[in-house]
Amino acid sequence: MQSRYLFDKVAIVGVGLIGGSIGLAANDKSLVREIIGIGRNLRTLEIAMEYKAVQRISTDYRELSDCDLVVLGTPVNTTIELLPTIAPFLKKGAIVTDVGSTKVKITQEARDILPEGIVFIGGHPMAGSEKKGISGADQYLFENAFYVLTPDRNTPKDSLDRLKTLIESFGAKTILMDPQEHDLSVAAVSHLPHIIASTLVNSLFDFENSQKIALLAAGGFRDTTRIAASNPDMWRDILMTNGEFILHAVDVFRERLNEIYEAIKDKDEKHIYQLLDRAKKLKTGMPANAKGYLPQLWEIVVTVPDRPGIIGYISNILGNEGINIDDIEILRVREGEGGTIRLAFSNEENQKRAAQHLTAANITTRTGIGSG
Amino acid sequence: MQSRYLFDKVAIVGVGLIGGSIGLAANDKSLVREIIGIGRNLRTLEIAMEYKAVQRISTDYRELSDCDLVVLGTPVNTTIELLPTIAPFLKKGAIVTDVGSTKVKITQEARDILPEGIVFIGGHPMAGSEKKGISGADQYLFENAFYVLTPDRNTPKDSLDRLKTLIESFGAKTILMDPQEHDLSVAAVSHLPHIIASTLVNSLFDFENSQKIALLAAGGFRDTTRIAASNPDMWRDILMTNGEFILHAVDVFRERLNEIYEAIKDKDEKHIYQLLDRAKKLKTGMPANAKGYLPQLWEIVVTVPDRPGIIGYISNILGNEGINIDDIEILRVREGEGGTIRLAFSNEENQKRAAQHLTAANITTRTGIGSG
Repeated sequence: MQSRYLFDKVAIVGVGLIGGSIGLAANDKSLVREIIGIGRNLRTLEIAMEYKAVQRISTDYRELSDCDLVVLGTPVNTTIELLPTIAPFLKKGAIVTDVGSTKVKITQEARDILPEGIVFIGGHPMAGSEKKGISGADQYLFENAFYVLTPDRNTPKDSLDRLKTLIESFGAKTILMDPQEHDLSVAAVSHLPHIIASTLVNSLFDFENSQKIALLAAGGFRDTTRIAASNPDMWRDILMTNGEFILHAVDVFRERLNEIYEAIKDKDEKHIYQLLDRAKKLKTGMPANAKGYLPQLWEIVVTVPDRPGIIGYISNILGNEGINIDDIEILRVREGEGGTIRLAFSNEENQKRAAQHLTAANITTRTGIGSG
Repeated sequence: MQSRYLFDKVAIVGVGLIGGSIGLAANDKSLVREIIGIGRNLRTLEIAMEYKAVQRISTDYRELSDCDLVVLGTPVNTTIELLPTIAPFLKKGAIVTDVGSTKVKITQEARDILPEGIVFIGGHPMAGSEKKGISGADQYLFENAFYVLTPDRNTPKDSLDRLKTLIESFGAKTILMDPQEHDLSVAAVSHLPHIIASTLVNSLFDFENSQKIALLAAGGFRDTTRIAASNPDMWRDILMTNGEFILHAVDVFRERLNEIYEAIKDKDEKHIYQLLDRAKKLKTGMPANAKGYLPQLWEIVVTVPDRPGIIGYISNILGNEGINIDDIEILRVREGEGGTIRLAFSNEENQKRAAQHLTAANITTRTGIGSG
């Protein structure tokens, strides 16, 4: 009998940030009948259940035997170790997918280890959070995010379509890549920046008087090195798994770094400008993404005196007029609440109306156009 | 007769982002009797006056002849060109300061060009904005920001004290450095990150299929390369003026980059971990700053359905209870307004009370501790 669900029973093995978010996102839909959380740590599973990321929990892999979809929410190295453990329990025709940040190795391992009749499709959601574990799980984590899948030519079309349908129901955009293409891509856009950010921090503290120097670090340094604060265990594993592609990416980076180094050394103004200008144009042309593909936003910057309750005051003025605030950001915080606040609206009319009503309430506004 | 003001007449030459913000910050105080904006472009000056950054404007440098303080708000190279132009008009005993991002060259030039009896004290406010020009000026720009001054042993103590008093009245923290120390410091914390960010963008687009690769760029790449979108004219000038220190900083960076490169090549797990862990610890120990020295903030993450007016709704609940929101950030924006919102409070009690009242209003909350 054909089930009225896309998947009758889904197992999430490893209900952390990503696994938990998948559970929350899938829970909300009518596509899955039942979601079970499986893992070794009962306490973690219980928390996942409190968060409603899964409907049932178990530490027994035999629960996998009637699952149509098994999501391995574990880090790359754990996932590789898990494959032989779960292999004996999998149902014929089941789809197994992972969420690891590299794809070549896991795809090879899955091909070698999983029995005939099991469909492995590697996955990598391009979404994350600074928070770790289930407490960072968010049912909207994948909205507008890209989600890479790495099928090969033996992947049954029907299995791929079902997995795509589920993932796209989370609001994600699926991209198909082969594992090599994926691993080189993430080496360039994710692993290289990580190495660079860590190296920037490490080199800053190689200078004499580094503590005094660090006082001068402003927004530029802070943003450029933000990801250096990530989990070193996870990143060591990534750098170990994707070394070959990462070394290639570092080579490409070093060549460009040498180029600007020589231009500065030669005091070659034109060449320096050309390199900075190329970067600016390429950067500006890139899709803004971490918050999803936001359209252009119409902004108002509000300068307010230090006064309690000012956010509520401003949003009330706009709320009473039925004007939606699409984004709000406190640009400068002073001792109490207040300072400079950026408001963004999804269209010019709302921006104009908001500016009128705020001005009428004696709030200083300036308008501009930004992007999310 | 001793004026009852710290400065009787202040000239701001070049009323852009920084000059304009100085005007706004000084305007608010009782320390300055009159602020005049001077420049070549009358239209720009008129806008500065509309913004109330200055009280009078002029395109005539003769206005400098009765000024006690002359603030050169122009970029480094323009400032160097300006010195001989303004030199003949300066009043004996006047203080001249600049806001340029390097200090060795301008200090030498000022010593050579300005007449005896004029006190030049280089300045560099560690504050900025992505906005350019007067439209980004903000009277609170310097609050909690560091502001470097580079006096030398000939600087009269009284002049330095007066300038410090004015700058600290903006809410800034002054740091005294010698020009060399300053230029090496900013090479390490500001210019090097800029080169690195531009180089990351440039190298990404050296890969084959770079357009498809760019689709995978997430928050890490975006943050690490954010400053690559800055003005290439300004940055070419900075890289030209501070080349020597920058090359040294790049050398230090390259040595650390080689170290992690070799560790990845040798698959030396321990060494990779040690480098990542050092960076994480150093980064985590650094003062958060671009928004000033914020104390630890107590956070609540709120997950809300897509519903208009939700920000106003939440801030009303808290406002009615007299609970200040110290920071608010929309973490994920969906099509309309809503998604996940981070609220931060300055103390644990407010965090707890806020969580109670939001929960009572059926809003899902999670608490945590972050830092500004």
